[in-house]
Amino acid sequence: MVQSDDLGISLERSAPVPLYLQLRNQIAQLVAAGRLPAGSRLPASRDLATQLGVNRATVSSAYDQLVAEGMARSHVGQGTFIAGRPEPAPPADMTWPFSRAMEAAGRQPRHATPRTEHPDPIDFASLVPDEELFPIEPFRDVLNEVLNREGKQLLQYGPVAGYGPLRDYIASRLAEHGVRTSPDDVQIVNGSQQGLDLVFRTLVDPGDRVAVESPTYSVVLPVLAQYQAQLLHVPMTDHGMDLRALEVALTRQPVKLVYSMPTFHNPTGITMDLESRKKLLQLAAKHRMPVIEDDFDSELRFAGQELPPLKALDEMGLVIYLGTFSKGLFPGLRLGWIVAPHAVVETLSRTKMFSDYHSSPLLQAAVLEFCLRGHYQEHIRRLTKIYRRKSRRLVETMTRYFPDEASWTEPDGGYAYWITLPEGVSSQALLSESAGSGVVFTPGNHFFSGDEGDGSFRISISRVPLDRIEEGVQCLGEILQRLLAATGLRGRRRPSAREAVFHI
Amino acid sequence: MVQSDDLGISLERSAPVPLYLQLRNQIAQLVAAGRLPAGSRLPASRDLATQLGVNRATVSSAYDQLVAEGMARSHVGQGTFIAGRPEPAPPADMTWPFSRAMEAAGRQPRHATPRTEHPDPIDFASLVPDEELFPIEPFRDVLNEVLNREGKQLLQYGPVAGYGPLRDYIASRLAEHGVRTSPDDVQIVNGSQQGLDLVFRTLVDPGDRVAVESPTYSVVLPVLAQYQAQLLHVPMTDHGMDLRALEVALTRQPVKLVYSMPTFHNPTGITMDLESRKKLLQLAAKHRMPVIEDDFDSELRFAGQELPPLKALDEMGLVIYLGTFSKGLFPGLRLGWIVAPHAVVETLSRTKMFSDYHSSPLLQAAVLEFCLRGHYQEHIRRLTKIYRRKSRRLVETMTRYFPDEASWTEPDGGYAYWITLPEGVSSQALLSESAGSGVVFTPGNHFFSGDEGDGSFRISISRVPLDRIEEGVQCLGEILQRLLAATGLRGRRRPSAREAVFHI
Repeated sequence: MVQSDDLGISLERSAPVPLYLQLRNQIAQLVAAGRLPAGSRLPASRDLATQLGVNRATVSSAYDQLVAEGMARSHVGQGTFIAGRPEPAPPADMTWPFSRAMEAAGRQPRHATPRTEHPDPIDFASLVPDEELFPIEPFRDVLNEVLNREGKQLLQYGPVAGYGPLRDYIASRLAEHGVRTSPDDVQIVNGSQQGLDLVFRTLVDPGDRVAVESPTYSVVLPVLAQYQAQLLHVPMTDHGMDLRALEVALTRQPVKLVYSMPTFHNPTGITMDLESRKKLLQLAAKHRMPVIEDDFDSELRFAGQELPPLKALDEMGLVIYLGTFSKGLFPGLRLGWIVAPHAVVETLSRTKMFSDYHSSPLLQAAVLEFCLRGHYQEHIRRLTKIYRRKSRRLVETMTRYFPDEASWTEPDGGYAYWITLPEGVSSQALLSESAGSGVVFTPGNHFFSGDEGDGSFRISISRVPLDRIEEGVQCLGEILQRLLAATGLRGRRRPSAREAVFHI
Repeated sequence: MVQSDDLGISLERSAPVPLYLQLRNQIAQLVAAGRLPAGSRLPASRDLATQLGVNRATVSSAYDQLVAEGMARSHVGQGTFIAGRPEPAPPADMTWPFSRAMEAAGRQPRHATPRTEHPDPIDFASLVPDEELFPIEPFRDVLNEVLNREGKQLLQYGPVAGYGPLRDYIASRLAEHGVRTSPDDVQIVNGSQQGLDLVFRTLVDPGDRVAVESPTYSVVLPVLAQYQAQLLHVPMTDHGMDLRALEVALTRQPVKLVYSMPTFHNPTGITMDLESRKKLLQLAAKHRMPVIEDDFDSELRFAGQELPPLKALDEMGLVIYLGTFSKGLFPGLRLGWIVAPHAVVETLSRTKMFSDYHSSPLLQAAVLEFCLRGHYQEHIRRLTKIYRRKSRRLVETMTRYFPDEASWTEPDGGYAYWITLPEGVSSQALLSESAGSGVVFTPGNHFFSGDEGDGSFRISISRVPLDRIEEGVQCLGEILQRLLAATGLRGRRRPSAREAVFHI
């Protein structure tokens, strides 16, 4: 950080030029003189104001002015930085010839992230870990340790499959959950998102039919569109995807593969029961149909009993398993893993190599050291304790404030909850009112590829502090009661997912 | 690291069981008791031997035994680690349905990395920076700095386009090389390899014709095969790709895009001259044909005058520019960038999002801080000084030891040199002899998609110490003289690339 002491800025209160403009001018001079190169971070406005003995608003105005002129850029949460000189090349008089893959992905509906202008919002929308809980210090320690120990190797090109000792560790951790795998069958990837992309790229041809849960993880839809897959939408039931519906569909047409989140499903939080897990694998075996198991947050269990992952029940070698450090630790590491049958993993590795060679050996070694020192387990214990309390508070307050005609899932882990609204009430309408009061969530239509889902929404509890859950739920409940009254449909529940019509 | 003191190992010299087996047994017991979990690193054999007062070979034998039993895994340069239990699932009785894309990529010839069993090899093969020169300490400092300063943000999900201040910095650095771009048109990627993959995925449909230099970067060939592109191989001349040949080809059939390394081309080291750069852009403009400029090592210039990148001469907005920190700094960061015309960059970012969301914000912020503190420029100055000396030594010694019938390029930067062998002499034959003496290089056929290239090879000087270059070149020269004598073709040079027959 550039200290203002170093900058030699001094303002004159008696000058005719306003203080904020004096400050702007002096910073512009420092930029012109090369003393503040592009990318330099300006001091925090509060600090600079204190040092200069001026009002903080004066500094903010100067910064705003620099940003407006394009001389600086402001990055939320990171501060204000000196910008490069933007002189874009003149646009070509041509239509860019994008690939059919990207055109297909582009045709997927794009939902705007729910936003609010409220100064003190309650964010039930983000399904991301709370950064306030990040164990940064122990992570810094392990980074230093591995850099000191094997920095040369970790900053050099590394193995495509991933850092060997981390693959050993992952294989052994999975063994504790009943998954029998060799470290040779583990491929390290940049988070589940890359895992999904590589698996689909390796297996899916244009026109192939891929079964997905409906609703499902919203970003999987454009990725599958990119590979020009045909989607078979399998409705969710209270115990996982509707396997009877899948079975019927399989009698009609072949399905290339199934994508499923059997544990703490996103967006519903539902966990597939043991019987259904076995049944899904029987269907897979009968139809020689690979199953992609996206096990993104099963470690975050705070209630109920652990169930074996599909991969642990997989006697035919048909399950491709995806895991990640994004939900239980740091999303910004971009680290996850694929465990695939031996016949597949070599091709997957080749796909990874063509994509980006390999994931960062430094971050892989640091995460391994973090795990071996016990920090990861400790962090998971801390998270699940917090989520258990938040979960209780959420369910308690929904019961108190939401109309009887609404219903919701009560997951045993993770942080996603799925609310089914009373008939005639729209989640978009709810959001447009609640956002004004600073309460946001994700409307149900984000998780469907068609027009469905407006009668439901997702609440995520990860980033809302325990003591603000009630306030948020009360706000939603009051709007809901009002919207419901307006429909004149009191007393009517929406048909549950189990009764939904199966559609492909 | 597990200290042997903590392990409570003690060996008995008087026991009937050999010392190495006693050690193996005690380690196995520690594993069984859970005191050495999978992924634990065993103490370095030297250290453990000292502590136990035994010969180092005793410890090595114990470790070898554990590795042979599958209880441990040895990773070159990193040590020996306790392994997970390998119990792979039984193989499925099915043929995995790989996508046509991956089948196509798999049909590309795969060349084995040149290897030697020699204990003290001379590696002219690896085109990777020498890790002995890595500035690890200053990098550790900046990692700590950015983690302390903005750890929460850097370990959280970040912007798809990349860490804002780094994009600002890259735009401003490029401005120094004449490239006019806005930070908004910069996309951070995981090294050039991901840059290439994203660009091709965004633009190439099966059957599209893509022009590449011949020879070219070996990994671009399977990537293009994966997108089922048809390749137009444009021969290299002494001043870059043969534009007359490209022009003729363009009159016959449309070309979707051109992939070029105009500066210090891999594998030849050739730099395209200014006139050719302008001519290539004229052709691109005339045919509305995007040009992918892979500028992977232009900062490593140690002779001659800097030429503007194609992107700086691009008035039509047709050049997509790829840069990387892999050759000038640390390959293991997996960090590079794309600068693309505004009409393209948004689609590229979407492709990046579907691939893996974004690159690690932590590593991006650390690299920026490293650059802002001047370490990057300092490191580049150090590298170019070293490469200049190595380059002179290489050319000097090739002149001394290689037959007159051989010829080579003399690049102004980077570390790749292209040697054209006398007629009748094969680079594969040369390698199979030289590898026995510990000298390896990359045979020419690695850089062509057909059978060509056996009459040439690539030497990389990055990882061979200055004082061993002569030894390596002398070894190659002596074998060459012998192979040449055996052909009976003394005095005949191979036709140079300029006279090569153009083929598509």
